[in-house]
Amino acid sequence: MSRRTVFFVSDQTGVTAETLGHSLLTQFEAQEFDQVTLPFLDTIDKVDQALKEIDAKADSQGAGPIIFSTLVQDHLRKRFAPKTGLLIDFFNTFLPSLEDELHAKSSHKSGRAHGLVDSGRYDQRIDATNFALNNDDGARTRDYDRADIILVGVSRSGKTPTCLYLALTYGVYAANYPLSEDELDTGALPKVLQPHLHKIYGLTIEPRRLRQIRRERRPTGRYSTTQQVSFEVRAAEELFERYKIKFVDTTRSSIEELASTILSNTGVERRIRP
Amino acid sequence: MSRRTVFFVSDQTGVTAETLGHSLLTQFEAQEFDQVTLPFLDTIDKVDQALKEIDAKADSQGAGPIIFSTLVQDHLRKRFAPKTGLLIDFFNTFLPSLEDELHAKSSHKSGRAHGLVDSGRYDQRIDATNFALNNDDGARTRDYDRADIILVGVSRSGKTPTCLYLALTYGVYAANYPLSEDELDTGALPKVLQPHLHKIYGLTIEPRRLRQIRRERRPTGRYSTTQQVSFEVRAAEELFERYKIKFVDTTRSSIEELASTILSNTGVERRIRP
Repeated sequence: MSRRTVFFVSDQTGVTAETLGHSLLTQFEAQEFDQVTLPFLDTIDKVDQALKEIDAKADSQGAGPIIFSTLVQDHLRKRFAPKTGLLIDFFNTFLPSLEDELHAKSSHKSGRAHGLVDSGRYDQRIDATNFALNNDDGARTRDYDRADIILVGVSRSGKTPTCLYLALTYGVYAANYPLSEDELDTGALPKVLQPHLHKIYGLTIEPRRLRQIRRERRPTGRYSTTQQVSFEVRAAEELFERYKIKFVDTTRSSIEELASTILSNTGVERRIRP
Repeated sequence: MSRRTVFFVSDQTGVTAETLGHSLLTQFEAQEFDQVTLPFLDTIDKVDQALKEIDAKADSQGAGPIIFSTLVQDHLRKRFAPKTGLLIDFFNTFLPSLEDELHAKSSHKSGRAHGLVDSGRYDQRIDATNFALNNDDGARTRDYDRADIILVGVSRSGKTPTCLYLALTYGVYAANYPLSEDELDTGALPKVLQPHLHKIYGLTIEPRRLRQIRRERRPTGRYSTTQQVSFEVRAAEELFERYKIKFVDTTRSSIEELASTILSNTGVERRIRP
């Protein structure tokens, strides 16, 4: 099968074009793609330059490129006409039917989605990110009143990246608390967590995968032995069940999936939208 | 203008549907929308339940909802037929033309984009996130050899969230180093940074905005005075210029925009794709 080049073209960051394009391309598993992002094409000159690059690639590769475009400004979009390949123009495709439905003209201005900053939205993300950092790994427990959610699990079960993703993507205040061996031994929910039981969510992970992750971090010592890892995971799951804490297995889930599952299962509101 | 409800419907996380919908809706500035995400609709029962919720909302609101769907499994998509409103079906719209262009059938399986974890991709993100955390705020400088990029700027110029976003979204190894007053006084690039000049990128910010951010953190003291903030910003920009360090102003940029600008201006490769 011939190798194809995929271009993500935007007058803004290209994040939307990348996300949408990636979703579509993952439906074609057998095919491999070279991926090139051409962001900030906000002048006719830059659009012309991008066209040259795309057309040259088509000539050299002998297969038409696939181009995902989120160019939104009319004069740029009209100019953007690659010679060959498949052009998927997200705004062109959907704006007309939305305009009909809403009985309104769209602004066709760029800089709306990921561009010009909405300062309230920005502050919310930064504040939530700082909250996640300050309340990472049980470092601080006195701010749990402000938390939307507190993720609990054994070391390396995926708490930190999930909290950071919840903060950056949804502006949600997410703390996390690691269950130590001593705490797991007692079988009781740590005292600092008890007043916040309603906002606790558990993470678990298959022992085999956990051992692999821990060994990369610390190859020797009890921390990454089969026995220790199995004990911790079993004790954590028993704790979740004893306190009726909902929990999710992170072994086969992406961070996006974990975040979305947690929001969906708890009813915690997104404070911002991606 | 009547208020509309927007639904994001997916048999997976809903992240793609939200991204698509949000991009399009921001083109209609005057309109306000209530937004509801209905993720993980992976059985006929769940699809039917979602239909009930959507149709009930349409009845009570008297205005058709707008529905962005990334349902990909055929039997779910065929079942999903809301009574009123505008249905924007992402996969239905684009997969046929992609199938033609690629001379291949798409898999119509869910769990490809943000779902079933690609464990190499997962490890890359986690590793990059840990790198960003360990190398945040100049905490560690001995790992700069591994860094793809080192962001440099005054306190609260936006370094940490940008690094975390680069790690979580693109798997890029991003460290950051805060320029202290002493270092700014000397006008010289700190010694630990000098061997890594080629991977340094500067962040700056308007003094007025910086003062506002700092005052929220520490309302009193020199840290957030007009004079101090102006001095630091000016000295940092002079330092960038003296060493020919590229820099970007974070004042009016979203985190996505900053990350995308930095990758685009440095040529640092995305290690993963969103």
